[in-house]
Amino acid sequence: MPEAVETFDGWYCLHDFRQIDWTAWKLASQEERNQALNEFNALLSSWEDIEANRNGSVGLYQIIGQKADLLIMNLRPTMDELTDLETEFNKTKLAEFLIPAYSYVSVVELSAYMAKGKDPNTDPEFQARLKPVLPKWDHICFYPMDRKKDAVNNWYMEEKDERGRLMYEHGMTGRKYAGKVRQIITGSIGFDDWEWGVTLYAHEMLQFKKLIYEMRFDEVSARFAEFGEFYVGHRKTKEDLEKIMAV
Amino acid sequence: MPEAVETFDGWYCLHDFRQIDWTAWKLASQEERNQALNEFNALLSSWEDIEANRNGSVGLYQIIGQKADLLIMNLRPTMDELTDLETEFNKTKLAEFLIPAYSYVSVVELSAYMAKGKDPNTDPEFQARLKPVLPKWDHICFYPMDRKKDAVNNWYMEEKDERGRLMYEHGMTGRKYAGKVRQIITGSIGFDDWEWGVTLYAHEMLQFKKLIYEMRFDEVSARFAEFGEFYVGHRKTKEDLEKIMAV
Amino acid sequence: MPEAVETFDGWYCLHDFRQIDWTAWKLASQEERNQALNEFNALLSSWEDIEANRNGSVGLYQIIGQKADLLIMNLRPTMDELTDLETEFNKTKLAEFLIPAYSYVSVVELSAYMAKGKDPNTDPEFQARLKPVLPKWDHICFYPMDRKKDAVNNWYMEEKDERGRLMYEHGMTGRKYAGKVRQIITGSIGFDDWEWGVTLYAHEMLQFKKLIYEMRFDEVSARFAEFGEFYVGHRKTKEDLEKIMAV
Amino acid sequence: MPEAVETFDGWYCLHDFRQIDWTAWKLASQEERNQALNEFNALLSSWEDIEANRNGSVGLYQIIGQKADLLIMNLRPTMDELTDLETEFNKTKLAEFLIPAYSYVSVVELSAYMAKGKDPNTDPEFQARLKPVLPKWDHICFYPMDRKKDAVNNWYMEEKDERGRLMYEHGMTGRKYAGKVRQIITGSIGFDDWEWGVTLYAHEMLQFKKLIYEMRFDEVSARFAEFGEFYVGHRKTKEDLEKIMAV
Amino acid sequence: MPEAVETFDGWYCLHDFRQIDWTAWKLASQEERNQALNEFNALLSSWEDIEANRNGSVGLYQIIGQKADLLIMNLRPTMDELTDLETEFNKTKLAEFLIPAYSYVSVVELSAYMAKGKDPNTDPEFQARLKPVLPKWDHICFYPMDRKKDAVNNWYMEEKDERGRLMYEHGMTGRKYAGKVRQIITGSIGFDDWEWGVTLYAHEMLQFKKLIYEMRFDEVSARFAEFGEFYVGHRKTKEDLEKIMAV
Repeated sequence: MPEAVETFDGWYCLHDFRQIDWTAWKLASQEERNQALNEFNALLSSWEDIEANRNGSVGLYQIIGQKADLLIMNLRPTMDELTDLETEFNKTKLAEFLIPAYSYVSVVELSAYMAKGKDPNTDPEFQARLKPVLPKWDHICFYPMDRKKDAVNNWYMEEKDERGRLMYEHGMTGRKYAGKVRQIITGSIGFDDWEWGVTLYAHEMLQFKKLIYEMRFDEVSARFAEFGEFYVGHRKTKEDLEKIMAV
Repeated sequence: MPEAVETFDGWYCLHDFRQIDWTAWKLASQEERNQALNEFNALLSSWEDIEANRNGSVGLYQIIGQKADLLIMNLRPTMDELTDLETEFNKTKLAEFLIPAYSYVSVVELSAYMAKGKDPNTDPEFQARLKPVLPKWDHICFYPMDRKKDAVNNWYMEEKDERGRLMYEHGMTGRKYAGKVRQIITGSIGFDDWEWGVTLYAHEMLQFKKLIYEMRFDEVSARFAEFGEFYVGHRKTKEDLEKIMAV
Repeated sequence: MPEAVETFDGWYCLHDFRQIDWTAWKLASQEERNQALNEFNALLSSWEDIEANRNGSVGLYQIIGQKADLLIMNLRPTMDELTDLETEFNKTKLAEFLIPAYSYVSVVELSAYMAKGKDPNTDPEFQARLKPVLPKWDHICFYPMDRKKDAVNNWYMEEKDERGRLMYEHGMTGRKYAGKVRQIITGSIGFDDWEWGVTLYAHEMLQFKKLIYEMRFDEVSARFAEFGEFYVGHRKTKEDLEKIMAV
Repeated sequence: MPEAVETFDGWYCLHDFRQIDWTAWKLASQEERNQALNEFNALLSSWEDIEANRNGSVGLYQIIGQKADLLIMNLRPTMDELTDLETEFNKTKLAEFLIPAYSYVSVVELSAYMAKGKDPNTDPEFQARLKPVLPKWDHICFYPMDRKKDAVNNWYMEEKDERGRLMYEHGMTGRKYAGKVRQIITGSIGFDDWEWGVTLYAHEMLQFKKLIYEMRFDEVSARFAEFGEFYVGHRKTKEDLEKIMAV
Repeated sequence: MPEAVETFDGWYCLHDFRQIDWTAWKLASQEERNQALNEFNALLSSWEDIEANRNGSVGLYQIIGQKADLLIMNLRPTMDELTDLETEFNKTKLAEFLIPAYSYVSVVELSAYMAKGKDPNTDPEFQARLKPVLPKWDHICFYPMDRKKDAVNNWYMEEKDERGRLMYEHGMTGRKYAGKVRQIITGSIGFDDWEWGVTLYAHEMLQFKKLIYEMRFDEVSARFAEFGEFYVGHRKTKEDLEKIMAV
């Protein structure tokens, strides 16, 4: 059987998608709403401090469409820290108005495919990419994916070299979008229902579509990719959130 | 691998399907109901002004069957504007009675297949079609779709010329319905769960069925099309909405 | 590519399946319940008048099992009329206790396969079948279906003559059940998620099973049919409904 | 095309799975709870009388796991009787605390495969099995199933003799479990979403697993079987139910 | 047809996943919350006593992500005991705040593949593994799985020796993780919707991903495995639970 390629794992990652319960939010008193936002802002500040200290990273995003309204994304050195912050968030006042919509549990992953001839265990850039600061770019796109294992196209039956060739070609397509799209790949085999999560950042929304459309013609996508749901949105600050939630 | 065909993208598009919560609506006071409709009508007017100024377009439709009761469709130059108007709508009184049923996030897309020998970047008609005013025709039909990538029929493994031939043939079927059916194709790769959204307009409801049935025998549909849910309905004005909501 | 066979379309059709909210119904006062039934009976009477005037048809059925409790089925010359009556029904008191369970939007359809050598445009029997009065038989069975388009069995890639042969054979099976089962085929390509809806009527419940079981061995079903959910039930009058709803 | 094998149909059957709404049940007064149980016990007694008179059969079971808490199973000579008893049950007080979880509509079915050389129309044992008294054994297992009709393994394209051979072999596996597992096969083509329902009884829970595991290697299962959800539980009397519901 | 491999079955197992209803929990009084936790702790203690007496085993875990918040896992010699404890738990005060999220019904299973030349009926280690004490390791991972039976890769059509070879190879991969990952395989054919449940324990969360990723390249996984949902979490004591639930 083909050999597994070594993967390198960094920080654990929780994508937490929520829908705003507008009716309940409007029924709350102005005081309750202020309190809820203040408490959440304090929590967000504590997460930003963790990011400043390079012990994790955090991003807040507004999602378009009915699938979700907000995405809170956190990275931490351990899964326990993510579980704890999820519990802490769930106890906040604001969480009473933010209905769970979807979540994704994974870990930042780089494979030897991406080491480009350097030693992944020592290369500082490679190591830094395992513990990323989430980009402060304007737009975000998230989707989970699998590699097919059907009777004809079975990723896990392909030889290691062939898989490497396909991934290299795929990487070449991605490289054309350098400066336009940044990606964070998180692995979720054993952690969640899909095998990988793809989180993309762009300054310009249209670049997500251009990149993913072009990649769909890469052999590795055309033959082996299965995609889950797509979520797109915009990065938001605490001040933005206050405007969004103002009623 | 086959080359991707260049696509041209215009205005972003949000299809927002809603179900009326009749029980809650009837429980509201007449005053509350009036207020809700007035507020929504003012919002709709502001969107119509944007359409009049050629900065976007808007349509209001009643959908038949239990899948949804209303469709609010908006087009704008940026996704941010759509996200903002979704938030604004969600804060209205009327939105408390309009339960989310389905939404679709996409962007008006034309491919080089449709350029018919002209330069898509300069041809005024082609450019105008990227920023369409939604037709004021009586009936609407919406469905999302994918191109298959299974072991035998894999759109993304077909050669560019073959894809062009298949799309040309498909376009010929559509052309028979000129004056009877108008279509707006929106691309959603990277934005939503299906690859494309098809929004059709007709004066006569039956033309949707005739067109789609005939197209089902086009090779490109027979071999490569996968369809999502179908929604059909009727264009409605503010006055129509008031009649629909009168209890 | 194979040619599409001409289809002939008659009245539009809305199947509206509902679940009774027994807890809420029992909480209502006897007066409220009476009012709700009286109002619904008046609406049903108005629909029966339309049937008497040959401008449509209506049927009321009790469905067995948890999928639904009632089916209200209406046919009308235009989709707009169906949309209007759906809205009118949704505003009734009774509708507050009838939770939407499933609906189907379609149009009565006959294909040239069924013309049996006569001119479908002029044959009075063929034309009458396009605008049917729903049979007053005791039992009903409804299910939606698709024709497969997979890599091996693709209905839309079969030649017209071959499709005709398969449909003829299928019709022969149906003919054995003349007098036992009546069927109304409605087309829903472009209108709903499946391609066709099959509504069967019988005096004896077991005939549904016998017919559909036998047909499953017809080549056209064995190779090309994909089935949705099945609903079975019994025709009910206003008086029956009052007994069903009596608490 | 292969010929359909004649099937023989007996009593109609309704499997009615429910979840207990414990929070609402605990909120009810002791008096309300007593009243609800007494009323249900009276209904159950009337069903047991029907069984005693050989006009039907009834079973009450507790299901393990979150999919359901209780199963009420009834057999009757006509579907109308099942529909009526479902309505009668839905009107009871207890039903307000028993949320619908899943139901199955079918009819006891024996095929000519099982006639073992006797005339199914006259053989008293065969005829008796069509109108079964539900076994008073301790444990129950229910699952629905289909026969595959894919491009390679299509039950409805297999010759009658080959189907008979496969079913005979399958029956041989079943015969090994005589005295350990009893089965009631109900057909649901035209009545519910799967083609058959399998209801098994055992004195020892593990025999379900042993039988179904062994059968999975029968060619007819390996190549042609598709399974729905599995439910397992224990037979319960009125007295047991009172203990289960005691809070 | 290939012969079934003998399986050996031990204690029955119920995985009970729950979501915390934080809003309701916060609305409860401090007294109610204390009472709910005390009552649950007493129940948990009684289950721990059963474990101490080697009549079963119990584990409490916090799950990360929105799919579930808590997992209560119990093993017992009979399914009846599991059904009874499920009922007992459902009647507790705490259960009013723990919404059912997912459950899994199975039995500890070892196959002759794992007997390694010893007699499974007498080997004390083999017998002990059928009645396991749940490991007190920090992290847990659960997922259900099936063996494929499609036209090309059909586990139930493979010869017994070939299945043995594939399972042996698979076991070799597992053995590399000795001391890092412990697994409990439970069989659910006839009991629940998937065929097997896999419960893994690790001191280090990442080992789940490493093991499952590496195994995905084992031929038996690549060709025959279909996976359900994945749940990961952390073992928690009563004291931990009190901290988690503190608001």
